[in-house]
Amino acid sequence: MARIVVALGGNALGNTPAEQREKVAEAARTLVGLIRQGHELVVAHGNGPQVGMIQLGLSHAAAEGVIKAELPFPECGAMSQGYIGYHLQNALLRGLRAEGLSQNVCTLVTQVEVDPSDPAFQNPTKPIGAFLSEAEAAARMAADEGVFKEDAGRGWRRVVPSPLPVDIVEKESVLALLQEGFVVVACGGGGIPVVKNGEGDYEGVAAVIDKDFASERLAEVTDADFLFILTAVDRVCINFNRPDQRELTALTADEAERYAAEGQFAPGSMLPKVKAAVKFARSRPGRRAVICSLEKATLALTGESGTLVTA
Amino acid sequence: MARIVVALGGNALGNTPAEQREKVAEAARTLVGLIRQGHELVVAHGNGPQVGMIQLGLSHAAAEGVIKAELPFPECGAMSQGYIGYHLQNALLRGLRAEGLSQNVCTLVTQVEVDPSDPAFQNPTKPIGAFLSEAEAAARMAADEGVFKEDAGRGWRRVVPSPLPVDIVEKESVLALLQEGFVVVACGGGGIPVVKNGEGDYEGVAAVIDKDFASERLAEVTDADFLFILTAVDRVCINFNRPDQRELTALTADEAERYAAEGQFAPGSMLPKVKAAVKFARSRPGRRAVICSLEKATLALTGESGTLVTA
Repeated sequence: MARIVVALGGNALGNTPAEQREKVAEAARTLVGLIRQGHELVVAHGNGPQVGMIQLGLSHAAAEGVIKAELPFPECGAMSQGYIGYHLQNALLRGLRAEGLSQNVCTLVTQVEVDPSDPAFQNPTKPIGAFLSEAEAAARMAADEGVFKEDAGRGWRRVVPSPLPVDIVEKESVLALLQEGFVVVACGGGGIPVVKNGEGDYEGVAAVIDKDFASERLAEVTDADFLFILTAVDRVCINFNRPDQRELTALTADEAERYAAEGQFAPGSMLPKVKAAVKFARSRPGRRAVICSLEKATLALTGESGTLVTA
Repeated sequence: MARIVVALGGNALGNTPAEQREKVAEAARTLVGLIRQGHELVVAHGNGPQVGMIQLGLSHAAAEGVIKAELPFPECGAMSQGYIGYHLQNALLRGLRAEGLSQNVCTLVTQVEVDPSDPAFQNPTKPIGAFLSEAEAAARMAADEGVFKEDAGRGWRRVVPSPLPVDIVEKESVLALLQEGFVVVACGGGGIPVVKNGEGDYEGVAAVIDKDFASERLAEVTDADFLFILTAVDRVCINFNRPDQRELTALTADEAERYAAEGQFAPGSMLPKVKAAVKFARSRPGRRAVICSLEKATLALTGESGTLVTA
């Protein structure tokens, strides 16, 4: 029996409530499979499409005066945790009961601390929200409403920083619930980004924490044995999408870094997953990470699928 | 030391994110005061204005094609739990640390089971969302998009049922966290309303569970000693707003029912609070309820403020 932190992609959760219910039910089948194998589970997840929808919809409604005020980005992230967590915990409970398993499931609203001196704050890169004209973007920058950048010829979009996670504010709650045998959903969307202010209190900041790095941090602070990073492919590949493509069943941290330096892993896609996996594998002897597909995650611990990343 | 479930009104939380942060900080001062007195706290809250904003904003954005699909009402409720819970847990943690208290705080996404044969489903009464013209309302009813009623000459609005809570799905999580000494935020907005379907699984339904009744149910299942229902007045009054108005320091369940039968308590306002208080006081010997103002809640257990409701 192992303690596993699973990182689910937000893109794998669909774009509408109906789609999300369906995709979450599929994800729950795999997650329940891992629980049936005897493992303790913490489920983290992305929220790209979901927080995008919330932010876009509510800022449009605010701009048209339908609602009173724009919702700041951390608040939109908190909403996405409630929205996705509700579907996940509902589907997990259903899946557990269908298998005759008695575990309970709960979703924690999770804040993740970032460092205000993280260099990411000097160079916001993560696009969020609607596409604007250059004039609209200029007006919003003049009104101090964030940084806007031109996005690949499609218009101007707000960009926010993507700092590294420093701590999981609600880690004690996750641990307490794990000790009581619960399946815990936490760190949705990489967590609600907060910084410590001068008084030592947490304050929300407009930022997006990469969900793979947040899951890695969560796996460290909960002393997990495994970090599972679920993705669209069964195994990490080198020479991806080329005739000489090769699937890797195992990868040491040093090998991973060599491949990364060769440019084998796409930034914003496989690269952060490999980096998070390496960081976890090196964080304490015996810790290992798995990069695998959602469908075949239950085969990963026997080596039948996935890429095992070790120190 | 007592275990207290506190029910905070959604209207007391303000209408914008900035207002909410401010109001929640005020509420946290009182709640931390109760924790400093040595009590265990579960915080439940309403979400009327907040879920209204989310539902209105996102349905407007969906109608205009800005986002892909309308969000069902249970999903909007789940979002409001994340949004309000984030502010509450952040403010409570800040307040606790400022007082040198070490408790941790967490918010649970909470589903509340209702009975599909509850008579409320035959008579939806709770208005939600935008005001529509009669033609718009007729079109949406024809498209099977809910029941719409004329609202006091202001236009047509969707109405949803307000069934009674049967069970708190995540009650074991609340109990586990209380046992570990956590302050728990749960049952936001009366909970995400779900019914058990033919297979015994929980399914979201468009409904609003009264937050006072949901808090009462939560107080029963967590075996609380006290249910605190916070409101805008210091004490329950009879002959309210009349020259012979009288504040009540104590009220037995029988007295409360006699006053209620006389029409002393306004439906949709003080009446559900008194009913919930009576239900809790009668649920087991020794259980008591307090109806008091947010500002003076810390004075209620010494009788200096509030109305104590006993069996």
